[in-house]
Amino acid sequence: MCEGVEKRSFLTVTATKTSGKKDRFSNCSGDVKRIEVPSFSSRDALRSTIPDIQKDGYVAQAVNQYTFPNGLTLLAERMEHVRSAALNFLIPAGCVYDPPEHRGVASVLADMITRGAGNRDSRELSLALDNLGLDRDESVGSMHTRFWGATLARNLPAALEIYADIVRRPHLPDEEIDPVKALALQDLQSLEDEPRQKILIELRQRHYPPPLGQDRRGTPQGIESLTPSVVRSHYERLFQPMGTILSVAGNIEWQPLLEQVGRLFGDWQGGSEPSLKLGQAPAKSEHLPKDTTQTQIGIAYGSVPINHADYYAALGAVNVLSGGMSARLFTEVREKRGLCYSVWASYQTFKDRASVVCYAGTTNERAQETLDVTLKELTRLSDGIEEEEVERVRAGLKSSLIMQEESTSSRAGTLASDWYYLGRVRSFDEIQSAINSLTPEKLVSHLKRCPPRDFTVVTLGPKDLRINL
Amino acid sequence: MCEGVEKRSFLTVTATKTSGKKDRFSNCSGDVKRIEVPSFSSRDALRSTIPDIQKDGYVAQAVNQYTFPNGLTLLAERMEHVRSAALNFLIPAGCVYDPPEHRGVASVLADMITRGAGNRDSRELSLALDNLGLDRDESVGSMHTRFWGATLARNLPAALEIYADIVRRPHLPDEEIDPVKALALQDLQSLEDEPRQKILIELRQRHYPPPLGQDRRGTPQGIESLTPSVVRSHYERLFQPMGTILSVAGNIEWQPLLEQVGRLFGDWQGGSEPSLKLGQAPAKSEHLPKDTTQTQIGIAYGSVPINHADYYAALGAVNVLSGGMSARLFTEVREKRGLCYSVWASYQTFKDRASVVCYAGTTNERAQETLDVTLKELTRLSDGIEEEEVERVRAGLKSSLIMQEESTSSRAGTLASDWYYLGRVRSFDEIQSAINSLTPEKLVSHLKRCPPRDFTVVTLGPKDLRINL
Repeated sequence: MCEGVEKRSFLTVTATKTSGKKDRFSNCSGDVKRIEVPSFSSRDALRSTIPDIQKDGYVAQAVNQYTFPNGLTLLAERMEHVRSAALNFLIPAGCVYDPPEHRGVASVLADMITRGAGNRDSRELSLALDNLGLDRDESVGSMHTRFWGATLARNLPAALEIYADIVRRPHLPDEEIDPVKALALQDLQSLEDEPRQKILIELRQRHYPPPLGQDRRGTPQGIESLTPSVVRSHYERLFQPMGTILSVAGNIEWQPLLEQVGRLFGDWQGGSEPSLKLGQAPAKSEHLPKDTTQTQIGIAYGSVPINHADYYAALGAVNVLSGGMSARLFTEVREKRGLCYSVWASYQTFKDRASVVCYAGTTNERAQETLDVTLKELTRLSDGIEEEEVERVRAGLKSSLIMQEESTSSRAGTLASDWYYLGRVRSFDEIQSAINSLTPEKLVSHLKRCPPRDFTVVTLGPKDLRINL
Repeated sequence: MCEGVEKRSFLTVTATKTSGKKDRFSNCSGDVKRIEVPSFSSRDALRSTIPDIQKDGYVAQAVNQYTFPNGLTLLAERMEHVRSAALNFLIPAGCVYDPPEHRGVASVLADMITRGAGNRDSRELSLALDNLGLDRDESVGSMHTRFWGATLARNLPAALEIYADIVRRPHLPDEEIDPVKALALQDLQSLEDEPRQKILIELRQRHYPPPLGQDRRGTPQGIESLTPSVVRSHYERLFQPMGTILSVAGNIEWQPLLEQVGRLFGDWQGGSEPSLKLGQAPAKSEHLPKDTTQTQIGIAYGSVPINHADYYAALGAVNVLSGGMSARLFTEVREKRGLCYSVWASYQTFKDRASVVCYAGTTNERAQETLDVTLKELTRLSDGIEEEEVERVRAGLKSSLIMQEESTSSRAGTLASDWYYLGRVRSFDEIQSAINSLTPEKLVSHLKRCPPRDFTVVTLGPKDLRINL
């Protein structure tokens, strides 16, 4: 089954541990969260080794990687002090590949695909997954459809058997199309009552050239147009091993995992990854009139992608704006002026481009002042950054890094995204030393090369705002 | 400082591990989350020991507990395979204690309290916390004001020094009241644009006798009425050691922690815990007319509190409704009929009472059908439950339990809430065997004693709905 496995398998070692996740015992409940994974099409799956790390007396954890001849890459990190394991499938079937006349098809497929697979019907399939104690989610991002699950490590092999059915042998039954389309339309429609979410979607659509800024929810016309055969041919075109990444982290053994995945997916065949033709970036800033109590503000500007030499400097600069309660946006916009309850900036990357996205939600009366102050903070960033700000950023990023290393779900996610973006998995030491080496000079010199400018500004509320730069 | 510490300290042991948390590297960002901790006034801090547990070859973790003579309880769990630590302060200063004329004061205080403390001004204080790489949150629940923080275990002692300043020596400076009040008003106002959040708040207010159902956001009049001296006297009345719980989980040592907490809080003096007089439960079901695209539905009914013999059966019954994708509400309301994108039920407890809260968001056209189907699922629960449903529930609860045991933040939270509700910390084995012993008979027999009925139904949308029972 797995010929040549030993030869092509690379062991990488990094010093890490454990996990935490959704709380079934907690008093707070929410609905299913859909996590967007922006990304860009991957063609060549590189392989890499990472030097051994043994830190602070902690037990080193093994990261293994193997790319099957059909193009599927398996990544695994052994975390031996936990009892859980998380898995993460990235299949290059994101919403950017939705045909223009069928926008929303990836999301409809992601819902249909668990409604019966292999020898189980819809009911039997969800019951089988639930019986494994699996906390799971299927979601559609820009570049990938993602299957995520976490459970006891001992239940992982059984979960993988079921995911092989879902990914390779879904029924996509005719009779499920109507309820699934109804849900997709509702999901789209509900945005009208959720201006906070809506502003970020509208911002994305205006900031990136199509189809990069497309939202997974699609369009009413796109969803209405879907038939079972359209969904099936979308599945057949995009669900294939080339470019698919399966990552696993937790208390697992590499050799049995590799053999099982080889047996389940080794003979999976399919075409090449889909290609993408980008259009013109649309008209930029816009006000969306709406009779709301608050005004929503979204701002985006270009940054460098994760594979760029300036990446950590770019990340550092965003954290000067928004990495803690003493960060500039929080201090200037929220704390000092009381302008808005919620304000933040975050870094988002594709393979070949990246952006900083800022959000502020405020009263209609103070919306203009909020926009003015926020834009001023963005533009003055390249004027200079203090050592104490960078010290804070380093502390925050390092603490975050260590806490992520303790979670099986975080680790499974990072293994897959590192592989997708970089063709390798970064070691803890590599990231830590990049963070340690951040200085005000490095951040400012990056910001001189790549200053915050050419803002896409989208606002939503009763009154139009001016962009004062 | 800590006289009698050895004598009064109890060691309890349970088999657990590690943590995971917010992702500064992720592509997704959100605003600060406020976690509600519903709870009920605590007067007598009991002490307890839990038998030793050593499971599956995992290293046992120590849970220690000590109640200082002033009433402050310290709880700690050592998780030696992690590098992080989380802390959790529960101070009996929840929004139920807001005076009727100053509703919103607890939230305003929770924002003011970090704006300078000890020898640091507002800016120095947030910088000091950020420099420790602390991911943190201050929030107001029904019964408690909560301070939560997570960082590297080696930074925990320094964080505790700062929290001692915040909790005991806040400046509450006059000049901060205006921006803080402006933010509190915005937070309240923004609910008008967030029907999903609003419905749950409105439901709570109608379901519980006042002030239990009060929301932390208060009222516009209450916030407007606040002066620095009102906020200061609220602080002085409610911030005191009696009934305060400090829990810590992670890679920490008990003895130095106990000594430090003794030094920082041992001489803290204050009055008794505030008492609470409950009013009449308000008129029950209500439709709130609003011109929205979707209709929001909230339903609540009584259950047994966490300290009740039927607690696990009650939790199991809620999980039959909503504990996974094959659960009844998800299957009947979402999957089969495509009625609504999001539907769930969750268990919420106070010390002396508890409820099940259900939510559904749907189209205006299908809202009546959604309410009818949901209520039918609730009422037919006591008619019978299948063994396969309970099997699924057990698997889900156990998997969740193990994943929580791996997270420092989850553990710190559970230590404090167990102590508050039960006066002791439950062991892993105790919870696991309670889950294992769940059977359809036990669930149904609980449901016969405590059937889903006397529903509080609150709906929000353009059209009034009928409650068909």
